[in-house]
Amino acid sequence: MDSLSKIPGVPLYVQIREALREDITKGLLKPGQKIPSEEELAKRYHVSRMTVRQGIADLINEGLLYRRRGIGTFVAQLRITRDYTKLTSFFEDMLERGLHPSSRLLNLKVIPAGPKIAKALALEKGEPVICIERLRLAADQPIAIHCAYVPQKLCPELLKEDLESQSLYMLFESYGFKLKRAVQRIEARQANRFQAHLLEVEEGAPLLYMERITFADDGTPVEYVEGYNRGDRYACTIVLSR
Amino acid sequence: MDSLSKIPGVPLYVQIREALREDITKGLLKPGQKIPSEEELAKRYHVSRMTVRQGIADLINEGLLYRRRGIGTFVAQLRITRDYTKLTSFFEDMLERGLHPSSRLLNLKVIPAGPKIAKALALEKGEPVICIERLRLAADQPIAIHCAYVPQKLCPELLKEDLESQSLYMLFESYGFKLKRAVQRIEARQANRFQAHLLEVEEGAPLLYMERITFADDGTPVEYVEGYNRGDRYACTIVLSR
Repeated sequence: MDSLSKIPGVPLYVQIREALREDITKGLLKPGQKIPSEEELAKRYHVSRMTVRQGIADLINEGLLYRRRGIGTFVAQLRITRDYTKLTSFFEDMLERGLHPSSRLLNLKVIPAGPKIAKALALEKGEPVICIERLRLAADQPIAIHCAYVPQKLCPELLKEDLESQSLYMLFESYGFKLKRAVQRIEARQANRFQAHLLEVEEGAPLLYMERITFADDGTPVEYVEGYNRGDRYACTIVLSR
Repeated sequence: MDSLSKIPGVPLYVQIREALREDITKGLLKPGQKIPSEEELAKRYHVSRMTVRQGIADLINEGLLYRRRGIGTFVAQLRITRDYTKLTSFFEDMLERGLHPSSRLLNLKVIPAGPKIAKALALEKGEPVICIERLRLAADQPIAIHCAYVPQKLCPELLKEDLESQSLYMLFESYGFKLKRAVQRIEARQANRFQAHLLEVEEGAPLLYMERITFADDGTPVEYVEGYNRGDRYACTIVLSR
């Protein structure tokens, strides 16, 4: 990133921003690395500090850079991007990327289904449901809080499994369920104090929230999950057809 | 919501929460309506105020209720939920739901493609692109900011169209493009000052951010969009298959 091959008509701050973006995506600037100061960048590109600042502000807004007050501006970890065109579990997905998946079991209990969970899992209100709350990590970094609800009558064995280093999907399949389809809802929400603490973000930070009902090939809902994913570390892609 | 048919084993605050949720989804409590005070709810359900408060806190966190300091707690507008199993435009989707769609044109200009846009649209860097920035409204409420980039060579006529009350997808199709497929990325981000002002939310509020490249049936990328959707008013659903 030594000089700008300035493109006429494109504002300078956009060109600075895109030059920095290229350095990050090409790996010349690595996650955790401090980027040069505004003064240095202004000198290097022969632009004003205001121009540099504007370009940097955009990348902070995108989550590609973050600022530490009084210390400098740093390259953020890239978001883990999940491919939602195929039905996979968090565990399978991270494993495939070489991002060693693990879980911390926060809560494991049997509860009677309230109206929302009963509806999602096609149960009667009050039927027993296994509730599995886990902090999900990839390469030892907290990424998501998943709260899974499974009808106890479907897999009572689940309570005896090691749920910290195994995929629920793989367990379901080992019990003979053929997972076929999932319906998923996606929202943007704010981290409450509890979530912020576990995910190591600030209270109020944006989270990608999702609800997923997974169905077996005979149409039985096997699992209902509510997941809170770190907005700065998680993204997803989908494909749509007309 | 006169009494709880208490379900043994389910914490009382969860039962209060689910009773309130049912009243909202059934329309007994309407968007904008003030819910009864903590004291009233505590009396009605024979529980403590702490219990009521905990149930309400969960629904605020979900975005179903919001609090106005010193005034009370109100029912939020329900999120508009877009079905991302089919490729439709914001305009078409809102129209179908009877949520009168409209747009405010914020910016319309021709710019040379920077590296990111050039890559998305399979152009050379510097090729002219029409940039259409619009505030999107449903039933006169601001929902999203969309910034669409279209190769100028594909549809130079676009600059002369009324872009406030027409769908870009419909315009593309009127030019003879058969829209076929889109690849979309979804993230959770924070509103910056500019976005917050336009979307009428607080700075830092969670937004559902999306990038979409739409392809014609011959594989030509026709449009690249960056969209910032209000987290409290917007959700999407998808279907995944294994």
